[in-house]
Amino acid sequence: MNGEEGSVQRRAERNDPHGLRTAIVDSAFEAFAADGFGSTSIGDLKASMGISGGAFAHHFPTKKALGLAVIRDRVAAAIETTWIDPIRRAPDALSGLDGVFLSVIDTLDSNGKVSGCPLGNLAVELSRQDDDFRREMEAIYARWRAVIAERLPHRAPEDPAGSDGAADLAALVVATFTGGIAMAKASQTSEPLRRSWQMLRSLLSAG
Amino acid sequence: MNGEEGSVQRRAERNDPHGLRTAIVDSAFEAFAADGFGSTSIGDLKASMGISGGAFAHHFPTKKALGLAVIRDRVAAAIETTWIDPIRRAPDALSGLDGVFLSVIDTLDSNGKVSGCPLGNLAVELSRQDDDFRREMEAIYARWRAVIAERLPHRAPEDPAGSDGAADLAALVVATFTGGIAMAKASQTSEPLRRSWQMLRSLLSAG
Repeated sequence: MNGEEGSVQRRAERNDPHGLRTAIVDSAFEAFAADGFGSTSIGDLKASMGISGGAFAHHFPTKKALGLAVIRDRVAAAIETTWIDPIRRAPDALSGLDGVFLSVIDTLDSNGKVSGCPLGNLAVELSRQDDDFRREMEAIYARWRAVIAERLPHRAPEDPAGSDGAADLAALVVATFTGGIAMAKASQTSEPLRRSWQMLRSLLSAG
Repeated sequence: MNGEEGSVQRRAERNDPHGLRTAIVDSAFEAFAADGFGSTSIGDLKASMGISGGAFAHHFPTKKALGLAVIRDRVAAAIETTWIDPIRRAPDALSGLDGVFLSVIDTLDSNGKVSGCPLGNLAVELSRQDDDFRREMEAIYARWRAVIAERLPHRAPEDPAGSDGAADLAALVVATFTGGIAMAKASQTSEPLRRSWQMLRSLLSAG
């Protein structure tokens, strides 16, 4: 099986360097979600894909270059697909949010394992380690929050001191998701995310 | 400076093996928060403390043993001190929660850097990598949520299907904190945590 994958990769290497780059980024994305960035060995990644050090280094001369590619090509795209597109298409903000949370919860339940939010995983592990990583991820959070905020009505804030209801609520939504799925990763069940969203939805419906 | 620290450690090693163990756990706790578990090198940790491999291995024969000690001795204690004690002492749940969030936000602002939640950092990085780590951290989350839930009034749930208002709200509070501080780590400011709590407090006060 490993040999077969290896020969696929060797063909890709000869005929389709872009395909090989994509395959490396895909493998790294999965490995970072399961084991973290720091515990993922580039040597193991190359061995499991059956590719040479030279072919790997051609695309990613450093582990940092691979990390940045995973964040730009896969983590940003995951937030786009899971969050931004459905929120933009939803008839209203609350049904859009409900759709995203319930769809993620369903996916966790049917996967039977919880790898966590690809952005949250790397943001928490890498933000103090490397400022280039951190800035890429800060920008993804900013976009995610802005897209939610622009769908929300501006609520009258309880505390008028510089607060912006839509921006505050967008931050709370992303925090609830990020923290709920972190706890879900620790329990390996969707339960913490499900409870957290159930309560937030109930508070928002009552408001 | 390094030499001076080294000699302190050597004295500790001769006279106070328990002190050396504590010093190693403290250093590892800081290193894991800044760099993550996977990117922390035991060799660097020993070198920066000026201690021998033998003395280190006497206390922690493996990196995993050190990780478990950090979770049991320091991460659990951090949740106890920052969250559980103040929530238990507070006159009521909402003022207790407000006190904890505002105190963490103040600390982040005066530190001028955000290392994140010690529990969230390791839960997100390690929960799929190692089931022993995961179970320790799952138990800390369970205790944290239970202590908050027992201070909360049971609210009439919007959705009666198996929901428990206090448990749901406790999950939402811990998710808001965990996710808010993850985003704060990515931005290196308290802003996402402050906005998230501001909105949750406002929703809870209105309810």
